[in-house]
Amino acid sequence: MSTLPRAIVVGVGPGLGWALCRAFARSGHRVTGAARRADEVARLAAAEPDLHVEATACDATDPQSVAALFDGDSPPSVVLFNAGDFVRGAVLDLDPAAVERAWKVSVLGALHVAQAAGRRMVAAGTGTMIFTGATASLRGSANFAGLAISKFGMRALAQSLAREVGPKGVHVCHVVVDGMILSERTKGWVKPGPDTALEPDAIADTYLAIARQHRSAWTQELDLRPWVENF
Amino acid sequence: MSTLPRAIVVGVGPGLGWALCRAFARSGHRVTGAARRADEVARLAAAEPDLHVEATACDATDPQSVAALFDGDSPPSVVLFNAGDFVRGAVLDLDPAAVERAWKVSVLGALHVAQAAGRRMVAAGTGTMIFTGATASLRGSANFAGLAISKFGMRALAQSLAREVGPKGVHVCHVVVDGMILSERTKGWVKPGPDTALEPDAIADTYLAIARQHRSAWTQELDLRPWVENF
Amino acid sequence: MSTLPRAIVVGVGPGLGWALCRAFARSGHRVTGAARRADEVARLAAAEPDLHVEATACDATDPQSVAALFDGDSPPSVVLFNAGDFVRGAVLDLDPAAVERAWKVSVLGALHVAQAAGRRMVAAGTGTMIFTGATASLRGSANFAGLAISKFGMRALAQSLAREVGPKGVHVCHVVVDGMILSERTKGWVKPGPDTALEPDAIADTYLAIARQHRSAWTQELDLRPWVENF
Amino acid sequence: MSTLPRAIVVGVGPGLGWALCRAFARSGHRVTGAARRADEVARLAAAEPDLHVEATACDATDPQSVAALFDGDSPPSVVLFNAGDFVRGAVLDLDPAAVERAWKVSVLGALHVAQAAGRRMVAAGTGTMIFTGATASLRGSANFAGLAISKFGMRALAQSLAREVGPKGVHVCHVVVDGMILSERTKGWVKPGPDTALEPDAIADTYLAIARQHRSAWTQELDLRPWVENF
Repeated sequence: MSTLPRAIVVGVGPGLGWALCRAFARSGHRVTGAARRADEVARLAAAEPDLHVEATACDATDPQSVAALFDGDSPPSVVLFNAGDFVRGAVLDLDPAAVERAWKVSVLGALHVAQAAGRRMVAAGTGTMIFTGATASLRGSANFAGLAISKFGMRALAQSLAREVGPKGVHVCHVVVDGMILSERTKGWVKPGPDTALEPDAIADTYLAIARQHRSAWTQELDLRPWVENF
Repeated sequence: MSTLPRAIVVGVGPGLGWALCRAFARSGHRVTGAARRADEVARLAAAEPDLHVEATACDATDPQSVAALFDGDSPPSVVLFNAGDFVRGAVLDLDPAAVERAWKVSVLGALHVAQAAGRRMVAAGTGTMIFTGATASLRGSANFAGLAISKFGMRALAQSLAREVGPKGVHVCHVVVDGMILSERTKGWVKPGPDTALEPDAIADTYLAIARQHRSAWTQELDLRPWVENF
Repeated sequence: MSTLPRAIVVGVGPGLGWALCRAFARSGHRVTGAARRADEVARLAAAEPDLHVEATACDATDPQSVAALFDGDSPPSVVLFNAGDFVRGAVLDLDPAAVERAWKVSVLGALHVAQAAGRRMVAAGTGTMIFTGATASLRGSANFAGLAISKFGMRALAQSLAREVGPKGVHVCHVVVDGMILSERTKGWVKPGPDTALEPDAIADTYLAIARQHRSAWTQELDLRPWVENF
Repeated sequence: MSTLPRAIVVGVGPGLGWALCRAFARSGHRVTGAARRADEVARLAAAEPDLHVEATACDATDPQSVAALFDGDSPPSVVLFNAGDFVRGAVLDLDPAAVERAWKVSVLGALHVAQAAGRRMVAAGTGTMIFTGATASLRGSANFAGLAISKFGMRALAQSLAREVGPKGVHVCHVVVDGMILSERTKGWVKPGPDTALEPDAIADTYLAIARQHRSAWTQELDLRPWVENF
């Protein structure tokens, strides 16, 4: 078994999730990329075989599935929680069942992962957990209650967790991604001009910098946005 | 049928919930007090019969139950959402099922009420909804993730709703109750001295003031705490 | 000498300042309205002689002038700080001397008033101070650094003061006026429609409600904005 | 003349200021370290001659002095504003003149530096400015109004500046240093145990990471604190 530090990315699609896998693999981590369906991760991993990213199926809303992701191995050095669903619409038009499903992925899923990762990291006295937030983590805008309910909740979890496990050596950071992440799906909507949407690889560079922070100077929260963004 | 404006209080126990019923009844509202069990509200109402508060059973997590609370009557002028459960403990010790149950009351329940009330108020072009928050609405402290996940989520909902229905004439306010509310249960824990815990009647006075604000100068959020509180 | 409680309003023009004088006079206060030039206040007072508002000149940036406003009388029950200058422009275009002048009115002036009022109120063990903030109290927007530097600073002062004098019986509140106040000067710029800018009398109603709060449930900060405002 | 990118650090003492000089010198910058008295910087520079840090006298409150720091050279790539005075005490005990002097260093000084740096960076279409904040940037605690007035003001400036010059290619970041920085002066006060106060070199690593961020994913604000800090 490799002696490289292990990184687990929960919520891997072709955008930020895969960029995080790539960045941590290149910086000397043995990376496991988890998603509800492993085949998508496997396809991405197969396209960059030199990274040796392991693709795994995990449903974050299922505690057994999360436990399986973390069991039978050394404690992870880095866990990146990047899962989430997006329910859009005015409050009066929202389907409560859809809001609940999204919340289960973003918050209950984050809780399951925080517990599985946190127990192992606290026992080891070290480790880094980073949660991916959004504009809606800080502000309930019109038509964004569905997302904001989940993202506010994830931020609450990250804050409490940071205060609890920090003094036990575990670094918890919440990243507010305040803008559109560039992807095949979003590239038609971004402002004209260079670098006007968040590059997944650029976001991943900051996650790496956070994971490398000395414990005397840890960041609990930061924002990321493109230079041209109105905010 | 009375022509007094109608106020509905969701989540009525002997503390703040009943104080809200009393304050709005005294200021000229026909008040319905709802709780999961109507008998407790009925007992409170029977002790102050001059207030004519109607006691009703309502499970906020059940959309049918919420619909029944709002159906068959004139649109409410005021709806006060005061329901919530409290799950305490460190993140690594939390029971995810308990977190989910508490979230369903505080956030899914608030969503059901917001939808039922909001549709009627938007149709009427007027109305006030006030949501009861807490210290944990703004900050995920150690051992308070269970509460903060719910309270952050309710605040997100209130913000989105305020932005959506405000321009349609409906006032949405979120009140951060930052301290312990005086009650039979809490009176043994409060600091010595006069007025060191939040008096339910004093809180209710501010809810009344909010409900009376002119639409040119509405408050979306405010805090309330005792004069002696460290904050 | 009247035995009515005394209210002092610092920064009285024909808009919010005068509305505060009017509201507190009508609710049973003996009101002193102060401005750099007393003649403007005197003109307003002469137009509503039944209010018996006393007009006084006070330069809040001058500690002697502030001391004179507070000396030789019973301690004020209510002090409302409403003075401020507005410097607009991009950071790279700002005149530092103008920023400094505005800061001296809004922050150094607020400090002088807080000290004069606070010493008397702490000695009396009671009193209320309310500071008028703005959108720029919470956010440094483009072209608003000149205002935000002052308003952020005033908010910092109000927060520290609240924490220090609260447990001595003195209530300190900071009001975020988040929108345009209706006036002769602004009425051409507001959105079409009814009540689309903040009515000074409506704002004053909320200041009155704050001054009346029971000490077990004080508000430290709240926002006010018109129903139609995007925020 | 060297073709290395230029970094200017304003406010250099033996703690964070010098650590920033060192970090940016080691990462390939030609560094100018400025302080009110150049001799202290010169002494630090003489002790690490391989860094080639240039020591310069600059009084940030004097626009001519700031202009001289920036004139006659290529536009700086990085400007780090680290100057500030600390006035402690309850509001009722503060010397307004001391508050004003501290404000002139932290805010008027930051404005002079922002203007001198910003004009050159906007013309170049690139550059990074980082402002050093503190716990008191976000919260006016008891006995900290003197510091909070300055630090809130600096944060306001940084926010407005970020929004104005970001779309012109200039990155503005505000760092909330939330804890005690380790130094000769503070080492007697920190909690027992390893890494319990912020190491200046660890803080500087994060400043470097910010300066290296790709413009598609810039951070406007982040916090830094030791792992053991209660917050």
